[in-house]
Amino acid sequence: MIYCPGKTSEQVAAIFGRLAASGGTVLATRAEPEVFEAVKAGHPRAEYHREAKSIVLRGGDKVKPAGYVVVTSAGTADIPVAEEAALTAELIGSYVERLFDVGVAGIHRLFDNWDKISKARVIVVVAGMEGAMASVIGGLAACPVIAVPTSVGYGANFGGVAPLLTMLNSCATGVAVVNIDNGFGAGYIAALINKTGEKAAGE
Amino acid sequence: MIYCPGKTSEQVAAIFGRLAASGGTVLATRAEPEVFEAVKAGHPRAEYHREAKSIVLRGGDKVKPAGYVVVTSAGTADIPVAEEAALTAELIGSYVERLFDVGVAGIHRLFDNWDKISKARVIVVVAGMEGAMASVIGGLAACPVIAVPTSVGYGANFGGVAPLLTMLNSCATGVAVVNIDNGFGAGYIAALINKTGEKAAGE
Amino acid sequence: MIYCPGKTSEQVAAIFGRLAASGGTVLATRAEPEVFEAVKAGHPRAEYHREAKSIVLRGGDKVKPAGYVVVTSAGTADIPVAEEAALTAELIGSYVERLFDVGVAGIHRLFDNWDKISKARVIVVVAGMEGAMASVIGGLAACPVIAVPTSVGYGANFGGVAPLLTMLNSCATGVAVVNIDNGFGAGYIAALINKTGEKAAGE
Amino acid sequence: MIYCPGKTSEQVAAIFGRLAASGGTVLATRAEPEVFEAVKAGHPRAEYHREAKSIVLRGGDKVKPAGYVVVTSAGTADIPVAEEAALTAELIGSYVERLFDVGVAGIHRLFDNWDKISKARVIVVVAGMEGAMASVIGGLAACPVIAVPTSVGYGANFGGVAPLLTMLNSCATGVAVVNIDNGFGAGYIAALINKTGEKAAGE
Amino acid sequence: MIYCPGKTSEQVAAIFGRLAASGGTVLATRAEPEVFEAVKAGHPRAEYHREAKSIVLRGGDKVKPAGYVVVTSAGTADIPVAEEAALTAELIGSYVERLFDVGVAGIHRLFDNWDKISKARVIVVVAGMEGAMASVIGGLAACPVIAVPTSVGYGANFGGVAPLLTMLNSCATGVAVVNIDNGFGAGYIAALINKTGEKAAGE
Amino acid sequence: MIYCPGKTSEQVAAIFGRLAASGGTVLATRAEPEVFEAVKAGHPRAEYHREAKSIVLRGGDKVKPAGYVVVTSAGTADIPVAEEAALTAELIGSYVERLFDVGVAGIHRLFDNWDKISKARVIVVVAGMEGAMASVIGGLAACPVIAVPTSVGYGANFGGVAPLLTMLNSCATGVAVVNIDNGFGAGYIAALINKTGEKAAGE
Amino acid sequence: MIYCPGKTSEQVAAIFGRLAASGGTVLATRAEPEVFEAVKAGHPRAEYHREAKSIVLRGGDKVKPAGYVVVTSAGTADIPVAEEAALTAELIGSYVERLFDVGVAGIHRLFDNWDKISKARVIVVVAGMEGAMASVIGGLAACPVIAVPTSVGYGANFGGVAPLLTMLNSCATGVAVVNIDNGFGAGYIAALINKTGEKAAGE
Amino acid sequence: MIYCPGKTSEQVAAIFGRLAASGGTVLATRAEPEVFEAVKAGHPRAEYHREAKSIVLRGGDKVKPAGYVVVTSAGTADIPVAEEAALTAELIGSYVERLFDVGVAGIHRLFDNWDKISKARVIVVVAGMEGAMASVIGGLAACPVIAVPTSVGYGANFGGVAPLLTMLNSCATGVAVVNIDNGFGAGYIAALINKTGEKAAGE
Repeated sequence: MIYCPGKTSEQVAAIFGRLAASGGTVLATRAEPEVFEAVKAGHPRAEYHREAKSIVLRGGDKVKPAGYVVVTSAGTADIPVAEEAALTAELIGSYVERLFDVGVAGIHRLFDNWDKISKARVIVVVAGMEGAMASVIGGLAACPVIAVPTSVGYGANFGGVAPLLTMLNSCATGVAVVNIDNGFGAGYIAALINKTGEKAAGE
Repeated sequence: MIYCPGKTSEQVAAIFGRLAASGGTVLATRAEPEVFEAVKAGHPRAEYHREAKSIVLRGGDKVKPAGYVVVTSAGTADIPVAEEAALTAELIGSYVERLFDVGVAGIHRLFDNWDKISKARVIVVVAGMEGAMASVIGGLAACPVIAVPTSVGYGANFGGVAPLLTMLNSCATGVAVVNIDNGFGAGYIAALINKTGEKAAGE
Repeated sequence: MIYCPGKTSEQVAAIFGRLAASGGTVLATRAEPEVFEAVKAGHPRAEYHREAKSIVLRGGDKVKPAGYVVVTSAGTADIPVAEEAALTAELIGSYVERLFDVGVAGIHRLFDNWDKISKARVIVVVAGMEGAMASVIGGLAACPVIAVPTSVGYGANFGGVAPLLTMLNSCATGVAVVNIDNGFGAGYIAALINKTGEKAAGE
Repeated sequence: MIYCPGKTSEQVAAIFGRLAASGGTVLATRAEPEVFEAVKAGHPRAEYHREAKSIVLRGGDKVKPAGYVVVTSAGTADIPVAEEAALTAELIGSYVERLFDVGVAGIHRLFDNWDKISKARVIVVVAGMEGAMASVIGGLAACPVIAVPTSVGYGANFGGVAPLLTMLNSCATGVAVVNIDNGFGAGYIAALINKTGEKAAGE
Repeated sequence: MIYCPGKTSEQVAAIFGRLAASGGTVLATRAEPEVFEAVKAGHPRAEYHREAKSIVLRGGDKVKPAGYVVVTSAGTADIPVAEEAALTAELIGSYVERLFDVGVAGIHRLFDNWDKISKARVIVVVAGMEGAMASVIGGLAACPVIAVPTSVGYGANFGGVAPLLTMLNSCATGVAVVNIDNGFGAGYIAALINKTGEKAAGE
Repeated sequence: MIYCPGKTSEQVAAIFGRLAASGGTVLATRAEPEVFEAVKAGHPRAEYHREAKSIVLRGGDKVKPAGYVVVTSAGTADIPVAEEAALTAELIGSYVERLFDVGVAGIHRLFDNWDKISKARVIVVVAGMEGAMASVIGGLAACPVIAVPTSVGYGANFGGVAPLLTMLNSCATGVAVVNIDNGFGAGYIAALINKTGEKAAGE
Repeated sequence: MIYCPGKTSEQVAAIFGRLAASGGTVLATRAEPEVFEAVKAGHPRAEYHREAKSIVLRGGDKVKPAGYVVVTSAGTADIPVAEEAALTAELIGSYVERLFDVGVAGIHRLFDNWDKISKARVIVVVAGMEGAMASVIGGLAACPVIAVPTSVGYGANFGGVAPLLTMLNSCATGVAVVNIDNGFGAGYIAALINKTGEKAAGE
Repeated sequence: MIYCPGKTSEQVAAIFGRLAASGGTVLATRAEPEVFEAVKAGHPRAEYHREAKSIVLRGGDKVKPAGYVVVTSAGTADIPVAEEAALTAELIGSYVERLFDVGVAGIHRLFDNWDKISKARVIVVVAGMEGAMASVIGGLAACPVIAVPTSVGYGANFGGVAPLLTMLNSCATGVAVVNIDNGFGAGYIAALINKTGEKAAGE
């Protein structure tokens, strides 16, 4: 996996090449289109996921849908981070159910889909503004919840500090938090948790 | 109204005396029992509300219950602040419905009482930890919501900063915020809003 | 209502369309001119309010001027936020009196207009720099005051943190606060408070 | 589960009684000895775990050791939080391996015990000061890591903010974080993750 | 001048002795009564000012009242800091007019005394909570204003940070600020400014 | 005086016109060249001071050099703020001695010019980075010192917070502080202090 | 070395015993007298350094005075931290020259002792309040300077944050910083630097 | 040495000329290519180091390789700061070994090169994200370690605050810290420490 900001297109392409040589899946996050151009030149099979701003080169892993990860997002502007999380979990071999736009304003959509949510092995909750959805979902769900604060907001949001603190202080049990906007990290640990079940079940 | 911390018992008693002389209701908040002793010496009719840590001397105002204020609190430890808010609103002449312990863990109690809540003219939401209840109630209610963050919590709660930021960034519309632990301020403005209705109705 | 930053013009236009379809008033705040172009294509009746940076599609609501909201601002640079608040309150059906440029330097204008201010059902005070006007007006007014800190300032203003803290700590009673630059939120709750009176009066 | 600070001994005892009446396991964290005295009066079978500062009343759950949780701590002063995490995970039905005092100074002990660590389903890393152990263990382990910053430290530690930021920014993948000193929360989510394996395996 | 916190009574007494030996005025601030006992043993003429928590040994300086310093405070709890400022300015040879309890609630007292205030050579404004008085007085006065934030307040006051930021961001011109609770520093520079006039006038 | 950021060129020109109409000196700070163009159109006598980024229209005041203000700056990058302070003091009628580039690296230049510095009625110290010069000069000078932190620096400078805190905590007596980069404010209060002497002397 | 806060007397005594068994020097910092009592019971040769709040058990190391460390402190209240630094460096085998009370007020003492200072291999500068001495000494010295901010101060000192930022932003070259109040850490690295010379010289 | 940000190309070129005139080595850090063009016009022998963003004019110093400095960096994006440190140390006359990309992900490269690292007189550790490498290397090395936090990261990294706090709180002894991104400062003090050995050895 490659985190692109602070690296030149050439540096990303070179690291991408080294990782691809070992045959597995490669993921480059927060990649601008021009970075993709540099990567594609050497790896024609590489895909660009515009919304997740990610470059993917798929290895031979197959997704096993026995258990699954749910990824929810609170607002439209949170989708890029949520999509980064979902894509990451898929690439590591998890089946993912996306449920976007279920914030305070769309809370009824949350309840309408509760059946699907409640059967997940792990839920990723992506939310900016005040991040209250992590508490609401964490209070209702029986499985582990990974909360991702986003930098969506303004003023006393302080670039994501407000939802970060909300999530760290959540009254709901079973909630852990990753860095602001860290969709990759949330998707990665969610897939690891999902795999815990897969390994134990001998899937 | 007198805010006691940082004043000696003698200073509080003296200010209390000056205010009482004008005949109206007097309220002293965050008063330790020994402050009450000093006040009571000169004002035998003064009452001490232990949970709200407040001294009250009632003037001639009568509560008119046509419209009312709802005060909710999220956890047991938030009750002193919630009680300070409720008491303040009552003293200014509002009828108050208390609904305590309706946090994320007791959210079903919120829905069970929604009928009473939804008819309030204004709701005061008192919550510590991550303060998510302000968003949940604000998202459902049609009347103004005054949110009071409390310093209940630990670690990244930072003495109430976490719920303060949660409430300021709330996605829900119709929510305004007062200072951390400021039950008095919330009760005061809630009573003013309730009176807006009373005046207009010629109650 | 739509908050535009972080959404593409296409996303705003699509959400705008969905909301307009239900027949009510639609408001899109912090909208750049190009967003308006995208919206106008499908909604020729949509208006662009340059100073408030807002797109408005008016539904059938009528403003009832029995009670009114006063919106004050402290400095010239605070006007966009003040105008966003005033416009929001009008769209929800409140009559609004604007009183701009009444900061510390123009405090005499405040006193000159006190008669009009003192009869409002609720006052919105918009102020950047150190935000002291919320305390001054809150100390004099008998109705609820909604304070809006703005990010106008520099240095130790910290993007609006200084007036935010000033307003949260105000000695004046009857003051509640919304997020930095949140003109929409202030206008919304002010209109709700004003409506409390309207409903009670059977206006 | 009951979080004791901010509640009187009587309040804790009353809540404890309500929870015990439903027959399950009850856990009260951060309980001073005098709180235990109040609880014990009504529940003679209640145990006091001095190091974890916790009161436990065991229900009928049995620990199934097929998969297990590892709890590590970096320094002597971090043990109370680590013990709270371990105790919590045990009470929810997980088998727990404790590995304390494996900080930067005792890093060789970490490598000596790597065989046991590497077979865990989930690892809880408790660390104060700068919290670097979460990155070191997260960089080596293949399972999910739950990191708990503690308030152990001084000066620019800022009551646990330093290790909190370290853990949130960890370069290592598969790490999520809970609130400062929140041993209970870490133990809880670790047990949920461990159970994911148990359920899938039909243990 | 001696700042007592962090020094033992013996250390203060020893430093006091050294300074007194040179014959001038000696001032020890934030001195607890027991420190005064230690000092008085060797300096029977030393005075203890309880409200300003200061020990004073007067040298031969005479106060010349031609120009004067005004010291105002906003609330009762701010008086110790205000008194420390006033006492300091007097000891350096300035005539001081005290005007306490002229905050937002007592703003009419400010206007009642404006004649005396407006003739001062320099004004010291001591205020906690949100510190708005520095802006109000600074906006009206034509002379330099030295603002002293105090740590009086709670919640989002953050130990005096709120009034500190208010004062640093003041829209009013002619205002400079000293550290939180630094009555000594404010009194000192105010006396220097007053002396500027005295020297120039050849008083 | 006009603070330009956040105002359009048209708004500045309009306010400038109103102020100029009253016949006195007009100063517009932080003015970009295009703002000057807009102002100059209506006020051909207006001057643009590039380094101080200020527009000046001189009224009839005459500078009386009997007492004077010294303005020092620590580094090359601090000069714009220092120049803004010096220009402001001159416009209000003070004679100003500039002494730039006397930071820690050029401390010998400070001592070489000490004779001139020590005779000033007031000293303005402008410094970024860590702002230590305010303490050094404040410790040596007998007159009031106005310290101006600048946002010059990087990393843990936090946009001027580091020198701001340095200056507020200065061990040296006789130092007061204005907002980060607030050259105007420092020059203004320095001129007021200098005038204290002028008035008293009947200059 | 043992850092005592957060450990019981029994825990300190036990760790002390383990370390002493290996025959080298043992140092326990921030030790209260009762901790010393617990240690002394098993180690009669242990010394208690009251000012440095440290327990020392000396091993066989000899101090070689060829090169030396200078430890300076700015104020009386900084001495405990400075003494902790000096004692630490001595125990690791460095010769130490102490030069206390050389802050802004005692700056002449600094110059009087410059000859001795300038010949040190490394200088430890301990300072609270605004910490400006690190810049002054760093600007004059040619050897490495280790700066130790202390938590001595009040208000906007923020428990040592002010001098920490001052020192991190120092314009002077050759300055590095340790944690607030970390006398031990400064003494340790200073001794390492001094040893660099000893090793190279074959002392 | 010249720090370029905040200075015009002309100012840099002028200062560069003054310093070059004295015959020694000149270093200008954080220089954009256009600044180099301005400098090169007058100093054709000046070199531009693109990665370190530095302009160098070499004086007559010779590097003596008897003792050496190791500079390590954790990630690709940290290289510019690491290169600035290495270049600075070389220009002051130290031999430097670079060891880049040895972060948590490349920790095996650290152990592979431990032989070379362990013989250094001083190690500079450059790391962003969470900065844990300073603790890992500090815990293993016997020589002084100078830690440089970088602003590489996002979200709760807060522009380098996270690694800064990690490094200041490091459990490892023998670690001191410089400002965020301050490669120059780290290289400078490292070279001073290395010279301590050279001087003592009479190299």
